[in-house]
Amino acid sequence: MTTDATHDPALNSWVESANGHRDWPIQNLPLGVFKANGKGARIGTAIGDKVLDLCALSDAGLIENEDLSDACRGRALNALFALGAEAMGELRTLLSGLLSNEAKRGSVEPLLVEAAEAEMQLPAHVGDYTDFYVGIHHATNVGKLFRPDNPLLLNYKYVPIGYHGRASSVRVSGHPVVRPQGQRKGPDQDVPARGPSARLDYELEMGIWIGEGNALGEPIPVDEAPQHIAGYCLLNDWSARDLQAWEYQPLGPFLAKSFLTTVSPWVITPQALAPFMKPMPARPEGDPDPLPYLSGSDPDCALGVHLEVLLTTAKMREAGDAPHRLSAGEADTAMYWSAAQIVTHHASNGCNLQPGDLIGTGTLSTDQESGFGSLLELSNGGKKPITLPNGETRTFLEDGDEVTLVARCEKDGAASIGMGSCTGVVLPARGS
Amino acid sequence: MTTDATHDPALNSWVESANGHRDWPIQNLPLGVFKANGKGARIGTAIGDKVLDLCALSDAGLIENEDLSDACRGRALNALFALGAEAMGELRTLLSGLLSNEAKRGSVEPLLVEAAEAEMQLPAHVGDYTDFYVGIHHATNVGKLFRPDNPLLLNYKYVPIGYHGRASSVRVSGHPVVRPQGQRKGPDQDVPARGPSARLDYELEMGIWIGEGNALGEPIPVDEAPQHIAGYCLLNDWSARDLQAWEYQPLGPFLAKSFLTTVSPWVITPQALAPFMKPMPARPEGDPDPLPYLSGSDPDCALGVHLEVLLTTAKMREAGDAPHRLSAGEADTAMYWSAAQIVTHHASNGCNLQPGDLIGTGTLSTDQESGFGSLLELSNGGKKPITLPNGETRTFLEDGDEVTLVARCEKDGAASIGMGSCTGVVLPARGS
Repeated sequence: MTTDATHDPALNSWVESANGHRDWPIQNLPLGVFKANGKGARIGTAIGDKVLDLCALSDAGLIENEDLSDACRGRALNALFALGAEAMGELRTLLSGLLSNEAKRGSVEPLLVEAAEAEMQLPAHVGDYTDFYVGIHHATNVGKLFRPDNPLLLNYKYVPIGYHGRASSVRVSGHPVVRPQGQRKGPDQDVPARGPSARLDYELEMGIWIGEGNALGEPIPVDEAPQHIAGYCLLNDWSARDLQAWEYQPLGPFLAKSFLTTVSPWVITPQALAPFMKPMPARPEGDPDPLPYLSGSDPDCALGVHLEVLLTTAKMREAGDAPHRLSAGEADTAMYWSAAQIVTHHASNGCNLQPGDLIGTGTLSTDQESGFGSLLELSNGGKKPITLPNGETRTFLEDGDEVTLVARCEKDGAASIGMGSCTGVVLPARGS
Repeated sequence: MTTDATHDPALNSWVESANGHRDWPIQNLPLGVFKANGKGARIGTAIGDKVLDLCALSDAGLIENEDLSDACRGRALNALFALGAEAMGELRTLLSGLLSNEAKRGSVEPLLVEAAEAEMQLPAHVGDYTDFYVGIHHATNVGKLFRPDNPLLLNYKYVPIGYHGRASSVRVSGHPVVRPQGQRKGPDQDVPARGPSARLDYELEMGIWIGEGNALGEPIPVDEAPQHIAGYCLLNDWSARDLQAWEYQPLGPFLAKSFLTTVSPWVITPQALAPFMKPMPARPEGDPDPLPYLSGSDPDCALGVHLEVLLTTAKMREAGDAPHRLSAGEADTAMYWSAAQIVTHHASNGCNLQPGDLIGTGTLSTDQESGFGSLLELSNGGKKPITLPNGETRTFLEDGDEVTLVARCEKDGAASIGMGSCTGVVLPARGS
């Protein structure tokens, strides 16, 4: 992925709020789906404190490419994703030009909506959702808790481990997290009982949105994998650790995860991330090389994204306290496998990926406690409560807690961009 | 589920081929989607050697209920499933009347299509596919191979174990099975290598199609679960055992399964199966009772379905040999958990099921070797080849092998019905 004039840090928009905007300067141009002004769902791009209505842009005849113009009239991004990376790049160039060229202001400005009035929707219909496990520090930390003798299994450094997730319960940021009920059995109990999860947790992940798909039976070579990625988001893989511990053998996590998965609303395109890509971290001495089908020729395939997790408890909210930062770290140092390797491995048996499929990276913890991406890790399996600035303590999430994931890309010589946020408030369990 | 006049074994159809038909007498009335005569996909019901075109029936004004009439004009069964059990029962009563009443023959007969000319389609758009593991003899047999010291884990008799599967690669019977490539590591090898699976297998399962869904956060009480089941099919969970053994820990099977799942085309409704439901087999002495949320009041929730697996090798096909029966057994004795318990458990954490979601039961093996539902079990993990009548031997599937699942319900005092078949031929691996 190369950079071009759309990435020029000197480029400004006639939407003044975009210039120097924390998340949405003209160098970002993320795609999303919103509702505003009583109309149905529409595709838009965030620019400063506005959203440009791409359906209106299409209606106004300002998208010449007919395929793009049609796809921008959809109620979800699937059709746009299906057009592939080249068309997505063409759209970016078009939007960059329209939003920077003062001569276009007259025709485009009426198509802007106040971001504060845009109710963001799930960006695409999720055909399948798959969750990976490429955060090696997370896998090691969790492995120690579940399998003290064998934290990182032998397959981990050969196989980008992943498992199928539940697509129907993927929701956009802001959806409340109803504490799930389920079976759990404490180590001191002879038999399990059903009840509200007592070990509700978040997981800090990035999401990968699939663009152009592959046909069933046709793998995706690793050097072509980036062409199948439509963009990235933040993803919270809410997890009920007590349900998980009891149910997960031998076939993996199920109800411990399927009650909700939350994603940030804006899809950050690979084009927007191009200036921030980094070389993959060197594999530790003694680790095997990736097998040939996972060995790509692009050295810069690590995501240079800074990630943070913020917590606001009910008490903090009442007191007007600022959110407390639970962790901060860099995605590129957390991931043992790249997004391209994830995509290639997923399709390597011939499995067909489809436009709008969602893939989670797995929890992205760094090798420092300050960068642990879940409470399971921060509290060492619930054994060591963390203390918040107001004196409250937490091992796992309590009702009323709000968890917010945020992300940002910064680099000398490039305009900084953000990824928005992914948030959810925990509500008490329902019924019995 | 009670029986009514539509189940009367004395009821005949004016479609003469239906009377005494092995699979499709008038007491069955399964739902499916077909293409014929150059037209697009349409909903139909099988009756003898014909298919009744329900879209044409709707167009002819013969479905008075407007919701039903609209749903029967769909290209898939999702909208019909969404109407719920009562509407599905109403449709059954209507179809039974139209196809038995000689006075209706004149208006309905022109809407029949030759079954031989109907190209069957996947019956519904699969939103999510979940595979369970309720075949206790299979779980025990496989457990012995993968974990000799611990074949059946402690959670098995409390939790209907399940895991998310891949929806995009579900195909209708007849789709070829391209041998998948993947990582596998033999016990004598230090490192894994990628290549075609050498241990390709089938799994005999029944599929459950979800009808009316539940909202996210709202569990389904076990006594209401039958209302959420639109019907049943045969399901082959094709499995690459060598890929599975290497990849499945700690998060479960992934690429070993996601290359293809095949279902039989006709959805057998719970109404059609009503005469064949049986009491759940008594739990062995010492087994725990199901937890209260899994304890239903209907004693007759076991599926009285006879299942068989047939194999035809390339050599047999060339010689014109009849298929060889690999196994035969009864579903009700194989399942430790009922379909209602499966559905209730799946939604017990608030996970939303949607019309057209597909659930596999897991492999349905009996406690006898003659009823083992996979080659993994029949060959004792590949250690004991089975010999076919023509002298060929098999541990796992070879290219050219065709596997066919069939099912049948028989009971004194009821008209026998079938479930059709689910078949696939193994093709050589592609590329590298």
